[in-house]
Amino acid sequence: MSLEAVKYRRGSLQILNQLLLPQRSRYEEIGSVQGGWEAIREMKVRGAPAIAIVGCLSLAVELHRCEKRDKDELATFAVESLDYLVTSRPTAVNMARAAGELSDFILTEVKQPDSSAESFKENLLSRLEAMLEKDIRDNKSIGNHGAKHILSKAKTDKVTILTHCNAGSLATAGYGTALGVIRSLWLTGRLEHVYCTETRPYNQGARLTAYELVYEKIPATLITDSMVSMAMKEKGISAVVVGADRIVANGDTANKIGTYQLAIAAHHHGIPFYVAAPSTSCDLTLEGGEQIVIEERPGEELTDINGVRIAAPGIGVWNPAFDVTPHSLITAGIVTEFGVHSPQELRKVLADKIGLKR
Amino acid sequence: MSLEAVKYRRGSLQILNQLLLPQRSRYEEIGSVQGGWEAIREMKVRGAPAIAIVGCLSLAVELHRCEKRDKDELATFAVESLDYLVTSRPTAVNMARAAGELSDFILTEVKQPDSSAESFKENLLSRLEAMLEKDIRDNKSIGNHGAKHILSKAKTDKVTILTHCNAGSLATAGYGTALGVIRSLWLTGRLEHVYCTETRPYNQGARLTAYELVYEKIPATLITDSMVSMAMKEKGISAVVVGADRIVANGDTANKIGTYQLAIAAHHHGIPFYVAAPSTSCDLTLEGGEQIVIEERPGEELTDINGVRIAAPGIGVWNPAFDVTPHSLITAGIVTEFGVHSPQELRKVLADKIGLKR
Repeated sequence: MSLEAVKYRRGSLQILNQLLLPQRSRYEEIGSVQGGWEAIREMKVRGAPAIAIVGCLSLAVELHRCEKRDKDELATFAVESLDYLVTSRPTAVNMARAAGELSDFILTEVKQPDSSAESFKENLLSRLEAMLEKDIRDNKSIGNHGAKHILSKAKTDKVTILTHCNAGSLATAGYGTALGVIRSLWLTGRLEHVYCTETRPYNQGARLTAYELVYEKIPATLITDSMVSMAMKEKGISAVVVGADRIVANGDTANKIGTYQLAIAAHHHGIPFYVAAPSTSCDLTLEGGEQIVIEERPGEELTDINGVRIAAPGIGVWNPAFDVTPHSLITAGIVTEFGVHSPQELRKVLADKIGLKR
Repeated sequence: MSLEAVKYRRGSLQILNQLLLPQRSRYEEIGSVQGGWEAIREMKVRGAPAIAIVGCLSLAVELHRCEKRDKDELATFAVESLDYLVTSRPTAVNMARAAGELSDFILTEVKQPDSSAESFKENLLSRLEAMLEKDIRDNKSIGNHGAKHILSKAKTDKVTILTHCNAGSLATAGYGTALGVIRSLWLTGRLEHVYCTETRPYNQGARLTAYELVYEKIPATLITDSMVSMAMKEKGISAVVVGADRIVANGDTANKIGTYQLAIAAHHHGIPFYVAAPSTSCDLTLEGGEQIVIEERPGEELTDINGVRIAAPGIGVWNPAFDVTPHSLITAGIVTEFGVHSPQELRKVLADKIGLKR
């Protein structure tokens, strides 16, 4: 069974505390909206889809126990809780998007003249719980679409995949996006090997992706970000698959720093380059990647490791957390739950499938 | 004054203990061949040119104090010492090359009928001491040739340089090769800024290059290896300059892991790429880069930092210490003490200048 970052059954939510990984694997109970907010704020859970799901499920567990008997009171509590959860990580777009959609649902539902407090609560719980299932279902679709596409282009029976950062179970409700593609290849017996980059400066590859790969017993090798080109030259990499933080209308993609360089190296070696992400990561309000604002983080992330100074004191530091890969370098396609699309097709696919427009 | 990794006057040798950098800057006295051997073995000094110079100067200080009055005894002591010094780091080619040349000199010199023990000792001391001066002089030539070439191609009055790993004072007798080019640009007032990569997994950029740049008050910024392409896109990099561990006959160059990826990124962005190294780093016995054997080092260098495990336990690791940049990506030239040469010219230049042949 694939690694579960989030364990949920009605009335109980547990999350794998990612701050303790890879040294310790400890699940922690989240019993309330306040508990969910704190877990997100403290980065025990990270990754935009995972944040939204843990936030919403923390509301589900508190709602389940809630003894309010009045429909309006329940609705007010739920909407206020969602507003509060959005403040846990202001940049977590998925949580804000989910809160907006759920609040609309609540305000419509509460006005239904025939519904009791009981049925209102039940409907809202089902809606919250559906997010978990949908995320995993979408990730499995992404995994299967990506795997099928890679295999259709492969020159060998088994394929070797290179990935960057962590776009796995630990960033989603489970299964993962880029790691979902890798899991699907593994499940069909067509995966030869995985190379994962350590992903400086925050080491998500070395800490989290390596952890997931070891957990699933997938044959895998960790390399530094600087070894990617040599690996492409010597290790028979069939394809590169990465996740996305945001995909804009023309297909330009913001993802963890280093992704752009990976795409250049893949292009140089003629290796297909895929971005794998759910349609919820697409933002058609922006036309091109140059409009994406890139977060710059503190230099200490780079100069200090586990509180110990590595770099020479006094040196200046530049620490952008993400970079933008232009759509021209996403040579093999963007994998969503709907299939594998060229960057040029993306806008039309999203309009057709979910009516997403700018 | 530029940072001195090695301080020498007749009878006294001090080296900057690089194991303590960047936290502490401590010079340590080397009083004997045994002391020189140990400093090299323990990696208090590193970098192929620096190893040869510290080895030879450790012989000079012991020779200076030596009370032997017999020419043959002095010669035997010197030749045996050189043989011993070669064993300190078996892969340090420059030490072996220097030992070979010096032993030939000693065996010729000792046969001169007119020379006394005194004059033999004096001649040998001068020869050993000349290595220090020659290395610094060659590095300054490399620096000046490289700086002039970069400025002749630059579109701006001041230039911004990106470098990788440490090819500075700390890897040579002083001044440095790639950092020599940067120092020459700085001294002429034409340097805008330097970007240095941290250079995973051993962090020579963050520890040593950053230390040298801070020491010289050169405006500089540390980035991860994965940020190079974004820096090239956004920070107006005028040229990339790196050192070399070995340059073979066709111009292919082995250097610290990550150099190949840097060259690909530079090519993608149309940024001139230079290799800077003394002619002693050229090895015409090998025709192409595919013949260079690449050292693979322990995985712990990558998974552990300061003795603390970073990566998930159980993950496989690949840790090549160097990679090979094909001559086609060394777009701007190879800088030696003789000038800036295209990879194609290299063989002829070395034959003309120093009779170096395969």
